Amino acid sequence: MLIHSASQVLTLAGGPQRGDALGRLGLIEDGAVLLRDGRIVAVGGSAELRAAYPGEEQLDAGGRVLMPGFVDAHAHPIWAGDRAAEFEQRLQGKSYLEILEAGGGILSTVRATRGASPEQLIAQTRPRLAAMFAHGSTTIEAKSGYGLDLETELRMLAALLRLDDEGPWDLAITFLGAHAIPAEFKGRADDYVAELSANWLPELHSWWGQHASGRPLPFVDVFCETGAFSLAQSRRILEAAKALGFPLKIHADEFDNLGGTGVAVELGAVSADHLVATSAEEIAALAASDTVAVALPATPFALSEAHYTPARRILEAGGLLAVGGDLNPGTAWCENLQFSLALACRYLKLTPAEAIAATTINAAAAIQRQEQLGSIEPGKQADLLLLDVSDYRQLGYRFGTNLVRNVIKKGALHVHSGYPGQ
Amino acid sequence: MLIHSASQVLTLAGGPQRGDALGRLGLIEDGAVLLRDGRIVAVGGSAELRAAYPGEEQLDAGGRVLMPGFVDAHAHPIWAGDRAAEFEQRLQGKSYLEILEAGGGILSTVRATRGASPEQLIAQTRPRLAAMFAHGSTTIEAKSGYGLDLETELRMLAALLRLDDEGPWDLAITFLGAHAIPAEFKGRADDYVAELSANWLPELHSWWGQHASGRPLPFVDVFCETGAFSLAQSRRILEAAKALGFPLKIHADEFDNLGGTGVAVELGAVSADHLVATSAEEIAALAASDTVAVALPATPFALSEAHYTPARRILEAGGLLAVGGDLNPGTAWCENLQFSLALACRYLKLTPAEAIAATTINAAAAIQRQEQLGSIEPGKQADLLLLDVSDYRQLGYRFGTNLVRNVIKKGALHVHSGYPGQ
Repeated sequence: MLIHSASQVLTLAGGPQRGDALGRLGLIEDGAVLLRDGRIVAVGGSAELRAAYPGEEQLDAGGRVLMPGFVDAHAHPIWAGDRAAEFEQRLQGKSYLEILEAGGGILSTVRATRGASPEQLIAQTRPRLAAMFAHGSTTIEAKSGYGLDLETELRMLAALLRLDDEGPWDLAITFLGAHAIPAEFKGRADDYVAELSANWLPELHSWWGQHASGRPLPFVDVFCETGAFSLAQSRRILEAAKALGFPLKIHADEFDNLGGTGVAVELGAVSADHLVATSAEEIAALAASDTVAVALPATPFALSEAHYTPARRILEAGGLLAVGGDLNPGTAWCENLQFSLALACRYLKLTPAEAIAATTINAAAAIQRQEQLGSIEPGKQADLLLLDVSDYRQLGYRFGTNLVRNVIKKGALHVHSGYPGQ
Repeated sequence: MLIHSASQVLTLAGGPQRGDALGRLGLIEDGAVLLRDGRIVAVGGSAELRAAYPGEEQLDAGGRVLMPGFVDAHAHPIWAGDRAAEFEQRLQGKSYLEILEAGGGILSTVRATRGASPEQLIAQTRPRLAAMFAHGSTTIEAKSGYGLDLETELRMLAALLRLDDEGPWDLAITFLGAHAIPAEFKGRADDYVAELSANWLPELHSWWGQHASGRPLPFVDVFCETGAFSLAQSRRILEAAKALGFPLKIHADEFDNLGGTGVAVELGAVSADHLVATSAEEIAALAASDTVAVALPATPFALSEAHYTPARRILEAGGLLAVGGDLNPGTAWCENLQFSLALACRYLKLTPAEAIAATTINAAAAIQRQEQLGSIEPGKQADLLLLDVSDYRQLGYRFGTNLVRNVIKKGALHVHSGYPGQ
């Protein structure tokens, strides 16, 4: 299929974009892309490619923007139940502690998730993945972490493997057993860390070999934060995971600066995520490493927090910056990565071009798929979006709606027309 | 048509909700609504209404929430061109003043709008109204104000009248000739105010009588703000409009406190909108009046401003509070009123129930249509929404997507399924 007459093709060619280089769109006006067998074969001007491939099935982009599919580098899309009642209670003045003591917060989602069958989990997760896909996220990182016992965590991973097989989306699966201290380990966090590190990770390793049909190992992630896992506990889990060969991620500095970013860099984590309270020294260390900084602006937005990831300082230091969505039932139930892109413009002070690179090629790097995804280059998987606009800067400028008209996944055209007005 | 088996029918019955009364949803579990000839005939339990009206065509709501259509009480949906390039320039560090001096800002939209034919204006506005409608706004206030000469302002109003006739939405039309000082009156604001008050308003009055086929007079609105119209200028325009019988609106206290809210109360304006910098005395005066306070949280959100409308103080004082969307090309291109509702929960500290009342029955009061719209009561126009959720609190809790499954306008079912996952 030859897609031609795009007002702008945003190629994002040339690999992940570090520091000041962020925002190089590789823009081709009146552009075209040739797809075959689910892969990108050629990219260029419309006239040139139409002349070079005259017999090809053609799709007229009608002056719309053609860009790589979004990669959502940080999501918690699988859980059971919801926390709408708790959201209301918070607005009525109940404190987080009162809600927690009444059995609310993350542990209420854990209870609901433990009580859900595999079929129930899949049925509740599928529409969320479909909504993310329809808003343009063609590849989605997906974490476990609402089981907090090995059986439920593996049930979540099995459900994610089935949903990945089902598609049309691709999932990048992450084990987040260290999301919170489960109720049965209350006051015994070190015991939970020991159990997870010494027993669950090896079991996960062998389970994955039997169930994941040749996929690379999942990421292992830790929530390093006051009230969750201390720096020493986070380090212990990540070191155990690294020794088994798992690639690493970390939730660091969302509220408090515990030192998680430094450990991420030291252990060669693929990404360090949230990074709101990160220190200048850690930003420098991060920028000198290959660990991708993943900003998640939907979370401070949804919590009415004043502080966001210091994205410009990370860029000035030469860091690799991505922006993710952080879909989750507690703080940010939002399937629309375009909204996080709009937040990144307003609250991280990225330009639309920078925010686009941070949600495509750099987000692909945050899940180690920069060789296959995140740009429009020959040989890469044909994951593309046609937007309902003729200028890429409408992304970011406009907000709260869906500007994706078509999602093209592995070369297959999904008609969606997200913007209802057209 | 009998719509039955709604998990919750939110009736919002009993008229506009003042002060502490805000948020009375009039919720009926397992509810049903009977519609005939575009009007609501009966509201009650599913079993009761199915027994009472056995021969009626039935629509199974499937356990979804049924609520009144949203009324967007403040919108600037008609303009030509866009300001995406300017949005990017601001993020690259250009100041508002530099952009203004380079011909940007509101006056660039005025230039584009003056240069657009009626057909072009309609073609660019229709998809925006369609998007608002698909996100659940069944009635939309719509302001002129990008013409700033009488000919263009009347062309905008004529286009809005045509778009209102076309539907399916209803429009509540507002003349906002006093949106900014046009370039040709630079340094002569008083002359513009004199021209508008003494000549344009009478001409508008007679033009409306000839072109608006029996509709009540449009609202006359003024942007009372530093850099736009002073308090004395705003008063002069509103007094002239009032003398001609126009109902009044005002943009007041968006950035600076000039006293516009006091004038609104004194002159009996239908609404005073924005109200971020409003003083305690003005809040008290407003609360003692029938002027509706219309908060527009999308604007401070999009401008990354820290200050929002002090909604809780307005409610504590006993005021009538509505929430509008403020769609416009400069500061808030967002057609999704559900997003403003989610902002109202987080940044105005309204509960979902309060925010729903503020975008339905109270928003109807802000455009003087509380007798016809904004609640599910016998005799009212059958403007309803079926949401893709079973609990109303999902509105507000979730954000950035479209939870409307069907819009029912004047009894006609519009299938949309805004949430792509279902």
